Amino acid sequence: MAHIAELIAVGTELLLGSIANTDAQILSRELSALGITVYYHTVVGDNPERLRRAVEVAKERADIIITTGGLGPTCDDLTKSVLAQCFGKELVFNQEAAKRMAAYFWRLHPDTGEMPENNYQQAWLPEGCVPFQNDWGTAPGCGFEAGGVRVIMLPGPPSECAPMFRHRAVPYLQDLTDGVIVSRSVRIFGLGESEVESLLREQMNAMENPTLAPYAKEGEVELRITAKAGDEDSARALIAPVEQQLLERFGELVYGVDEPSLEAVCLRLLREKGVTLSAAESCTGGLIAKRITDLPGASAVFKGGVVSYWSEVKHNVLNVPQPLLDRCGAVSQPVAGAMAQGVRTLTGSDLAVAVTGVAGPEPDDRDNPVGLVFAALSTPEGTYVREIYGAGSRERIRQVAANHALDLVRRYLTGLPF
Amino acid sequence: MAHIAELIAVGTELLLGSIANTDAQILSRELSALGITVYYHTVVGDNPERLRRAVEVAKERADIIITTGGLGPTCDDLTKSVLAQCFGKELVFNQEAAKRMAAYFWRLHPDTGEMPENNYQQAWLPEGCVPFQNDWGTAPGCGFEAGGVRVIMLPGPPSECAPMFRHRAVPYLQDLTDGVIVSRSVRIFGLGESEVESLLREQMNAMENPTLAPYAKEGEVELRITAKAGDEDSARALIAPVEQQLLERFGELVYGVDEPSLEAVCLRLLREKGVTLSAAESCTGGLIAKRITDLPGASAVFKGGVVSYWSEVKHNVLNVPQPLLDRCGAVSQPVAGAMAQGVRTLTGSDLAVAVTGVAGPEPDDRDNPVGLVFAALSTPEGTYVREIYGAGSRERIRQVAANHALDLVRRYLTGLPF
Repeated sequence: MAHIAELIAVGTELLLGSIANTDAQILSRELSALGITVYYHTVVGDNPERLRRAVEVAKERADIIITTGGLGPTCDDLTKSVLAQCFGKELVFNQEAAKRMAAYFWRLHPDTGEMPENNYQQAWLPEGCVPFQNDWGTAPGCGFEAGGVRVIMLPGPPSECAPMFRHRAVPYLQDLTDGVIVSRSVRIFGLGESEVESLLREQMNAMENPTLAPYAKEGEVELRITAKAGDEDSARALIAPVEQQLLERFGELVYGVDEPSLEAVCLRLLREKGVTLSAAESCTGGLIAKRITDLPGASAVFKGGVVSYWSEVKHNVLNVPQPLLDRCGAVSQPVAGAMAQGVRTLTGSDLAVAVTGVAGPEPDDRDNPVGLVFAALSTPEGTYVREIYGAGSRERIRQVAANHALDLVRRYLTGLPF
Repeated sequence: MAHIAELIAVGTELLLGSIANTDAQILSRELSALGITVYYHTVVGDNPERLRRAVEVAKERADIIITTGGLGPTCDDLTKSVLAQCFGKELVFNQEAAKRMAAYFWRLHPDTGEMPENNYQQAWLPEGCVPFQNDWGTAPGCGFEAGGVRVIMLPGPPSECAPMFRHRAVPYLQDLTDGVIVSRSVRIFGLGESEVESLLREQMNAMENPTLAPYAKEGEVELRITAKAGDEDSARALIAPVEQQLLERFGELVYGVDEPSLEAVCLRLLREKGVTLSAAESCTGGLIAKRITDLPGASAVFKGGVVSYWSEVKHNVLNVPQPLLDRCGAVSQPVAGAMAQGVRTLTGSDLAVAVTGVAGPEPDDRDNPVGLVFAALSTPEGTYVREIYGAGSRERIRQVAANHALDLVRRYLTGLPF
C-alpha cells in the first residue's frame, strides 16, 4: 500500500518570515528516498486552535503526519498537547526522557547540573508512544499510531530535526514501506547542473525503475539513482548498470559514489594513504580548513594552515617573496603557488593547498574581476595552479573556490591529471 | 478590519525537497511589514486536483490568497487555470501581456526575438484581473477579487517573486492595510533560550501590543519586539520602552539591536576604531576566520590567522613553548593564551583571538571531555582566557566556541568586563 505523508511545521517565526522551512526540504528528500509520497506541506503558528485545524485537514489527506517544531519549553510544548488531543491520547510523564534531559544539563553545567524547571515539561509524552531520544538537543520527539495514522513529532531546529528523523523516525517507519527503496548518489564536480541535465534529459525521462534525478549544490551535481524492489539485493541489481553507465559517461568528473562531500573524499584518501595536508587561504578565509575540520577524525591528517587575508601575512608568515607580490599582485598564479609551497614548508605537511582570488562584492585593487580565483596544490613532485572564473554571490564564489582546491587534492591522491 | 493571508506554493520540486520554500519566507516578511497577518503556508505539487483542494481550504480561513509558482509554460500554467476555476473566472487572452513577453524575448535574443511558442499561453489571464507585468522574467502575475477574497498569483523563482510582490502586489493591496507593523530585535549572547524565557515569560504573556517573542540560535537568543500602529513613528514609540527595559534587564549580555550576528558587530566595532584582528584556531579549525570573512569589507581589519590543528603547528608557527604544551596539554588555559599572543605577534595585529578545545565526538588524548573549550583574547594590555563547557554536536560546540571568542572581542572594544 502506498503511503502519503504530510508535513506540518509549527512556529510563528516561519509565518513572520524569520526563517525558511528547511526542515520540510530535508524531510521531503528523506521521505522520497523511502518511497513515501508527500502531497502537502503546511506551516502554522504557535496557536493551538489553528494547529488543531491543520491536523484535522491533514488527517483527511495523509496517513503519516510529521510535525516539526513547537516541542520546546518556550512554546509550552504546544505540538505535543495538541496532537495528543487530536488523536485522543493523554500525556504521561516519561521518567527516562526526564533522566536524559537532566544528564544533558549536567554536561552543560558540570558544577551544578542546573536545569531550568520548565524543561521537565518536555518529558510529558503521549501515552503509548515510542519516545525518540534527542542526542542533539533537549526536546525528545516521539511517534505513535492512532486511527490508522502514524504521527511523528520532531524538534524544530534543523540540527536536531534531521538526525532525529534519520536515526529515530526512519526505523519507526520501516514497517510501512512495502519492499525497499535503495538510492545511490553519483557525485560530480566540474560540470554545471544544466549541462548534466541536458546530457541526461532523454534518458531520465525514459526511466521508471530505477529513476535518475539531478540535485545541484554549489558547483556540484548529485545524480541520485533510486530503485524500488522486494529486497535490497534486487534494488541494488537495478541500480548497478545505471551507476556503471554514469561512471563511464562522466569519468574523472565523478568524485565519489555515496560520498557526502569532496572534503570527506579527501579526508578518506588522506587517511588511507597516510598523507598529511595543510591549507593557505586568502579569499576563502578559513573555509577550506573549516570544511575539513567539520569532519570528525580530520586531526589525523590535517595539520592546519594559515589564513593570509592580508598580503603582509602572505609575505611574513608564508614567505611569499615580496617582489612576487609587488609584481604579480596577491591574486595571481605565481602567488597562489608560492602560498601553497609556503604553508607546506611551514607546517611540514606532505601536501598543501592554497587559494587566492576576488570573492567580491568589489574587484580588487588591481581591478581583477569578482570571481577570479587561483587554486594551488603543492606536492613533493611540484606545484600545480588552476585558474577559475567563478560567478554568483560572495558565498558561492568562496564555496566553489574551496571545491576546486579539494578537487586538486582528490585528483593527486587518485592519480588523475589536474 | 484585520486581513488574513494564506500562502500557497505550487511545485513538485518543493515536495521532493529539491528546494526550500524561500518565497514563503520573503512574502511573510513583507506581509508582516504591511500589517497583514499570515496564519498558514501550504505547499502543493503540480497537480490540479490537489491544488484545487488546497485553495478550497484556504478560502475558509483567509481573505487574501497568494500563490507562488506554477505559472510558466513548463507546468501548463496550472495555477492560473485552477485559481480561475475555483473563483468562477474565465481566462482571457491579454494582448498587452503578450506584447510584453515578445519584448522580453527581443531583449534576450536581439537578433531574432525568438520566443518558444508555448510562452504565449502565459498571456491568458483571469477575466477582470489586474495583470502584474514581469520585468524580471517572462510569466506575468496578476491579482483579482472574487467573493470577498483577494487572489494574487506570483511566479515561483525567488528572483521574480520577490520584486513582483514588492512592485506589483503591494500597490494592489495598499487599500487593505490599516497601519504598519514594526519589529526590533534585541540580540543576547551568554544566556540559554530557556533561561531567557523563564525570566520573561510572565511579561511576554501579558503583552499584546507590542508583543515580545524569543528565538534561539546556537548559543544565542534573539528577542523580537513587534508593534502595530497607524504609522511607523507610533509603532516605534510603542517599541522603545520595551527595548529600553530589555537593555536594562540583560545589560552587557545584549550584543546588539537589529544586528545580524556577533561577527557583524565585531567587524563594525573594529572598523569604527581602526583596530586589526587575527585568529589562532585549533578546535574551531578556521570557523572564526570563515565567519568574519563571510562579511564583505572584512579585509579592512582582519589580517588573517593560523589554523593550528596539530600541536607542532602551535609550537612551530605560533611559538607556543613546547614545555607548556607538554605540561598543560594543547587544551588548556595557558596554551589558549599563548596561541592568542603568538598569532598577534606573528601577524602584527592589534588584537588576536584563539580557541582550543575538544569538539568531539571523542575526548582528547588527555581525557579532556567533549565540549571543554578555552577562548582567549590577546590585547596590548594583556591576555584573557575564558573557560567554556559546550554541549551538543561537534558543529554546535564549534559554533558556540567561535561565539565566545567573538564575544571577547566585542567586550574589549566596548569597554565591558570579560
